Amino acid sequence: MKIVLEIAYVGTAYSGFQVQDNAPSIQKTLQEALEMFFETKLLLSGCSRTDSGVHAKQFYASIEGDISENFPVERLPKATARFLPRDIVILSARRVEESFHVRYDVVYKEYEYLIVNTEVRDPFMLGRAYHYTRPIDADLLNTAAQQFVGRHDFAAFMSAGSKVTDTVREIRYFTVERVGALVRMRVAADGFLYNMVRILCGTLLAVNEGKISPEGLGDVILSKDRSRAGATLPPEGLYLSRVVY
Amino acid sequence: MKIVLEIAYVGTAYSGFQVQDNAPSIQKTLQEALEMFFETKLLLSGCSRTDSGVHAKQFYASIEGDISENFPVERLPKATARFLPRDIVILSARRVEESFHVRYDVVYKEYEYLIVNTEVRDPFMLGRAYHYTRPIDADLLNTAAQQFVGRHDFAAFMSAGSKVTDTVREIRYFTVERVGALVRMRVAADGFLYNMVRILCGTLLAVNEGKISPEGLGDVILSKDRSRAGATLPPEGLYLSRVVY
Repeated sequence: MKIVLEIAYVGTAYSGFQVQDNAPSIQKTLQEALEMFFETKLLLSGCSRTDSGVHAKQFYASIEGDISENFPVERLPKATARFLPRDIVILSARRVEESFHVRYDVVYKEYEYLIVNTEVRDPFMLGRAYHYTRPIDADLLNTAAQQFVGRHDFAAFMSAGSKVTDTVREIRYFTVERVGALVRMRVAADGFLYNMVRILCGTLLAVNEGKISPEGLGDVILSKDRSRAGATLPPEGLYLSRVVY
Repeated sequence: MKIVLEIAYVGTAYSGFQVQDNAPSIQKTLQEALEMFFETKLLLSGCSRTDSGVHAKQFYASIEGDISENFPVERLPKATARFLPRDIVILSARRVEESFHVRYDVVYKEYEYLIVNTEVRDPFMLGRAYHYTRPIDADLLNTAAQQFVGRHDFAAFMSAGSKVTDTVREIRYFTVERVGALVRMRVAADGFLYNMVRILCGTLLAVNEGKISPEGLGDVILSKDRSRAGATLPPEGLYLSRVVY
């Protein structure tokens, strides 16, 4: 039978979701734990490929294999907990139709980028957020970010090394808000290019620093030129936060 | 000259504040970093001895040594940041009189004990809070905790291995509040016995589980019997949160 798992993980110790030959991945760690629990080989697929060091507050993975039809799926989170490392957790589990595809059936995904905006580092946010000292004008960036919303060619916001040729994506919403010392950027789209969220957020920080004018973001999009956009922010601030089917 | 530093640290990787022969301590790490920065030997003292794995949101340490009278003390946090590991931060620094004693001049200290009260673990609170699955009645525990307030012999709330003979301490306040999925216990006193906060909080959880009646806490205090109190909760939920001079 086919089961879909809702999981969350701290990505710090992993090479990303996907299996890699030379580093531990979320996929391999999860698969080994579940194969030990079910005592059978499983096919495990993820809803997305998160990069090395990126976190997930909500991520879906499907498993298929020789699992008894009588297995009480709703008990899976508790029953498997002791097989998993402490930085990966199964939040919920449910049975799905064989036709369900955990990756292709995604309608849109939301990412959060979290920034600690203080002069002095907050050690408790170590590996959980990006530390940025210059004061952020969240309202200014929230207004500027609305230029990203809609269907655009985001070629300027893709890191080199991607084999993707169709660089058009649709951003559903993009918000920037301040919560005390934290600045939270949220962006939802039907799909994302390689490092797209980290470059979009880095471009907003370039606006904050006056390197790009708020009105100039449209031109950066139209240029399709990576060198016109801002820096790729580090992975520690990035969370896959919502996946909608 | 004598300087007092306000610091914060994630205690996970350390044996506690004090120098120990066989494990890295906050004291030793901080001292080595500052001696490298000032290029001179320093005498470093702390306001408290936190245990292995315990955190501090506010901790004071004093340094004395051959430091130039012209050194701009207020710049110390920024100037020394690159000498420190990422889990220790200097929040502020100021010059103090030679007569100031960072430990004996403390009027009272506040500790926080943080509990994630959810059925499923929150991986992002890993090492930052204690995970407890049974629902906590924070209002009940807050009312019960008021029996700890005042001047009492807290011998029942001290772990074995302490050489302390005077076990009378005065608790100024003790509050239990819920903030979403988190339960936060706060206790302030003129001083604390070995593991006292972790045992007091464990005793409140014994009340939550019906093992001790809320009215029975007074008897537990009077018994001076460690076996009558609750478990010693793990260090990961404990934070030294406020130090008042």
